Amino acid sequence: MFASGRRGFLKVGAGASVALGLPRALAAAAETAAVAPAAPAVLSTLDAIERRRSVRRFKPTPVPDEHLHRILDAARLAPTFGNQQPWRFLVVRDRAKLDRIKQEILASTEESLRRQGVTQPEVIEKRKGDITPYIDGLLSAPVHVVVLVDTTSKYPTYNVKDGTLAAGQLMLAARALGYGTVFLTDGIPEHPCRRALAIPDRFERIAMIPVGLPDSGTADGWPASPPKKPLDEVVVFETIT
Amino acid sequence: MFASGRRGFLKVGAGASVALGLPRALAAAAETAAVAPAAPAVLSTLDAIERRRSVRRFKPTPVPDEHLHRILDAARLAPTFGNQQPWRFLVVRDRAKLDRIKQEILASTEESLRRQGVTQPEVIEKRKGDITPYIDGLLSAPVHVVVLVDTTSKYPTYNVKDGTLAAGQLMLAARALGYGTVFLTDGIPEHPCRRALAIPDRFERIAMIPVGLPDSGTADGWPASPPKKPLDEVVVFETIT
Repeated sequence: MFASGRRGFLKVGAGASVALGLPRALAAAAETAAVAPAAPAVLSTLDAIERRRSVRRFKPTPVPDEHLHRILDAARLAPTFGNQQPWRFLVVRDRAKLDRIKQEILASTEESLRRQGVTQPEVIEKRKGDITPYIDGLLSAPVHVVVLVDTTSKYPTYNVKDGTLAAGQLMLAARALGYGTVFLTDGIPEHPCRRALAIPDRFERIAMIPVGLPDSGTADGWPASPPKKPLDEVVVFETIT
Repeated sequence: MFASGRRGFLKVGAGASVALGLPRALAAAAETAAVAPAAPAVLSTLDAIERRRSVRRFKPTPVPDEHLHRILDAARLAPTFGNQQPWRFLVVRDRAKLDRIKQEILASTEESLRRQGVTQPEVIEKRKGDITPYIDGLLSAPVHVVVLVDTTSKYPTYNVKDGTLAAGQLMLAARALGYGTVFLTDGIPEHPCRRALAIPDRFERIAMIPVGLPDSGTADGWPASPPKKPLDEVVVFETIT
């Protein structure tokens, strides 16, 4: 029933959005916007795949609710074992929460150093200062999606694959609409992130994904691709040794 | 260097394909084809995501090498932790090998029944007969890609996520070009598949993915989507409880 919902969201009057099962916050945004944002030129699948990059610094430009809706909808439609759909997408835009993540990472870095016997304040402050620009870059995106899976799902053995497939679709849909993302695991470590956002133990984190316009210091904001293995190194025919 | 390789494969003379690092089998196919197959209409990212289905029965129509190349290239470009690219894509088209997978699954089903104390030949044959149409449907695709990850990679902790992201991109690229796929784990169980294809222990299997034109018994061959949770059941804003 919701397969056509994305199109409905764009084409029908905003009043219909609640009937389509949209989250209240998105529906409210659609109803207050007098004119929907212009539909972006959507990249073809192969172009989105080829032009996706891992983006680690973003412009503050907000992502319109309509685009965020399409990006989340792409995640929702991912393949999933036995149609279990174990995922939850936690959307974080609140700057206070994002700053709490940063503070938790810095605190956890300090704890870790102290556990290793490092106690000199200047060494600890230096290390925290060293990682701060990187964290600030990641958290500079205007919106972040924490991809979670419910450990009480029907087939929890398949949760990591299911959640990862959803995250992948989210990233490609974002790229198709012009936004950068990055699949963060160690970049924003799980435990400080969980503590800052008070994520219940029941949910396993797959990744945290910032979404925003890229600001990588290049002419168009997109970073270069790191070197990739050629196809003949990764494809084998019929027999693998 | 290979980022533009996909386009190069389509545009330049076939003789250049080796220089672009294409697998020998694909390069040879390109060189023997007098005229390259017509470029298909490639779906937009959001359409491919919305129209992808899990396909479990296929037409025997071969997938042209050029399309297979683009599909594998999409997998190759997936996000990967620390750019480790731990994947290998094992392409299987040999009918004898695919039949061996089926025989291994049937043998493993029989072993499993015998271990449970079921010894009556008619019960065993009935069970094998019951699962055969399903297996035949999955194996009816003209080409299969076994997505593997190398357990000796640099960051093996992230191999499952990396391999799953590659499999997801493979499936979307296939859909964009008009092909059905399905992410098979238990559908073609790992151990019979490994035995039939003699996959070394060093490689972990992420999924086996048939690729072909869908033949699901509907007007256009595509199956209906199973019911999906609406967006407001899977998206939460700022706080999750």
